[in-house]
Amino acid sequence: MHVLVIGAAGMVGRKLVDALAAKGETGGQAIERLTLVDVVEPIAPPRFAGKGRTIAADLSSEGSAASLVAERPDLIFHLAAIVSGEAEADFEKGYRVNLDGTRLLFEAIRLEGRKGPYRPKLVFTSSIAVFGEPLPAMIGDTHHHTPLTSYGTQKAICELLLADYSRRGFLDGIGIRLPTIVIRPGKPNKAASGFFSNILREPLSGAEAVLPVGQSVRHWFASPRAAVGFLMQAAALDTALLGNQRSLSMPGLSATVAEEIEALRRFAGDKAVRLIREEPDEAIIRMVGGWPQNFDASRAIALGFRAETSFDDIVRAHVEDELGGVIPA
Amino acid sequence: MHVLVIGAAGMVGRKLVDALAAKGETGGQAIERLTLVDVVEPIAPPRFAGKGRTIAADLSSEGSAASLVAERPDLIFHLAAIVSGEAEADFEKGYRVNLDGTRLLFEAIRLEGRKGPYRPKLVFTSSIAVFGEPLPAMIGDTHHHTPLTSYGTQKAICELLLADYSRRGFLDGIGIRLPTIVIRPGKPNKAASGFFSNILREPLSGAEAVLPVGQSVRHWFASPRAAVGFLMQAAALDTALLGNQRSLSMPGLSATVAEEIEALRRFAGDKAVRLIREEPDEAIIRMVGGWPQNFDASRAIALGFRAETSFDDIVRAHVEDELGGVIPA
Repeated sequence: MHVLVIGAAGMVGRKLVDALAAKGETGGQAIERLTLVDVVEPIAPPRFAGKGRTIAADLSSEGSAASLVAERPDLIFHLAAIVSGEAEADFEKGYRVNLDGTRLLFEAIRLEGRKGPYRPKLVFTSSIAVFGEPLPAMIGDTHHHTPLTSYGTQKAICELLLADYSRRGFLDGIGIRLPTIVIRPGKPNKAASGFFSNILREPLSGAEAVLPVGQSVRHWFASPRAAVGFLMQAAALDTALLGNQRSLSMPGLSATVAEEIEALRRFAGDKAVRLIREEPDEAIIRMVGGWPQNFDASRAIALGFRAETSFDDIVRAHVEDELGGVIPA
Repeated sequence: MHVLVIGAAGMVGRKLVDALAAKGETGGQAIERLTLVDVVEPIAPPRFAGKGRTIAADLSSEGSAASLVAERPDLIFHLAAIVSGEAEADFEKGYRVNLDGTRLLFEAIRLEGRKGPYRPKLVFTSSIAVFGEPLPAMIGDTHHHTPLTSYGTQKAICELLLADYSRRGFLDGIGIRLPTIVIRPGKPNKAASGFFSNILREPLSGAEAVLPVGQSVRHWFASPRAAVGFLMQAAALDTALLGNQRSLSMPGLSATVAEEIEALRRFAGDKAVRLIREEPDEAIIRMVGGWPQNFDASRAIALGFRAETSFDDIVRAHVEDELGGVIPA
């Protein structure tokens, strides 16, 4: 089969590509072709035995989606998006990339299907940002969408489009609402939730990090490794099990900042914890105050999706996958 | 103030324009200008004392929204849409008119606001079609959106856009989810729900009508007169009371087809009821089976929205407003 990954140069995208190349199959079908796309040219996986291709393309530019879809990939991962902070700061760019880019992709698939039968599986990464205040302590899969950011609005709209294009038979879609991914490797990005990663990643490497909210803040987490697992599971899933509700909240870990810090202490000691500098930021405190704290992900769990159940597991995934199993002294 | 009505040639639009012209004010402010727009040129209200203008324009065509918004109307009613049956039959037209048309309007308002402070009140007509199976017997205002038609999907997306554009301060929006409007005057349109009106309107005028579903089918109704009342109330409402949830389900009457028929019998006798020909249509039965039956509209009721509480009231509104108070013998 031919697999297309859009957003392949992003953090989750790169890890997904590595997993696809290493496994060489999805849902029992061998992967013969792997096409990787992003606004910057993605890196080809070194270990992939099949035919690989990397493309630098902006999904929201004219003709871009059509030329990708003309190759008739059987499975499409659509991860490309600009993050919440940037979508809030640049209204036009957020709508262009996160909404128009997705819609152009769906339209390209629909129009390709007019030339001859074509209905690819499409895995779309949505976000828990589709939910906003007022929120229950535990958010069920049928809670209504009340996004409080433009990013969340764009993701909620794409979920609606995914369901309608699937219902009409143009594509076979599944949307997965990712928890906040921690620990994000590399440099901080513009996501407003970045500090949840920073306060672990930086001290684990001996660097300082700023905590802009109180330690009692509770939020919903999964590791990059779990995120890749969600994507692989979504790709292999029989979507008939989803009915008309094509998007679902992924499992995750509900934990406080204090619990994050205690996990850090267990892995790297008091010295690491002292590298966290508390600098309350009223704007971030207000924003985070409206974020989800906990989910009932029983629907996803029943469908085989799995996440970490403790912050130690999340820190361990980072140490193993990013630090070669070793915490610098 | 300057009021712009988009979709002014439609059934509800015409009645709204008549009400605005007759009342001459909204929310305590005198209406000095009334601009009426539709794809076919609307009829100017004969009784309006202020400055009136009628325009034939398609909101989804380039530059159309911008030229309407350049006049800086203080209050905009956006009722323009193609109906559910047509949006399902013509996928591209539905998205172009119902989604792109609305988004182009919102964008035109946002861009006009860059030239100088501008934040009009905008009343948008959404629909109960944003809800679909599985549904509870009573649908609350926080029930999640699971549209099962492209029309419902387009309305749900516009609700999300309305909330985000309002949150960002580009416009001051309120979305009202209309019940199915009965009795629609005039000829049947392409709405799949048309038969709910046909089986009353036609027999009341001595003509036959087809009932394609069983008499036990329950649905959610309000009269055209109530719909105009909703729009007037929405225009006058202090939107601060809405918080971030800018759209709400309007009150209505939950009733069965059998209750419709009994109301017809009380107004026009057995002779009228005999004009209803039962011709079950499996496609319509299946579609209607997924439609909402009843709503908890307590939020809207608390905000002053009012609808009929019996089918006799709905039939009476039709007889008074459309038949001059007289049922033909």
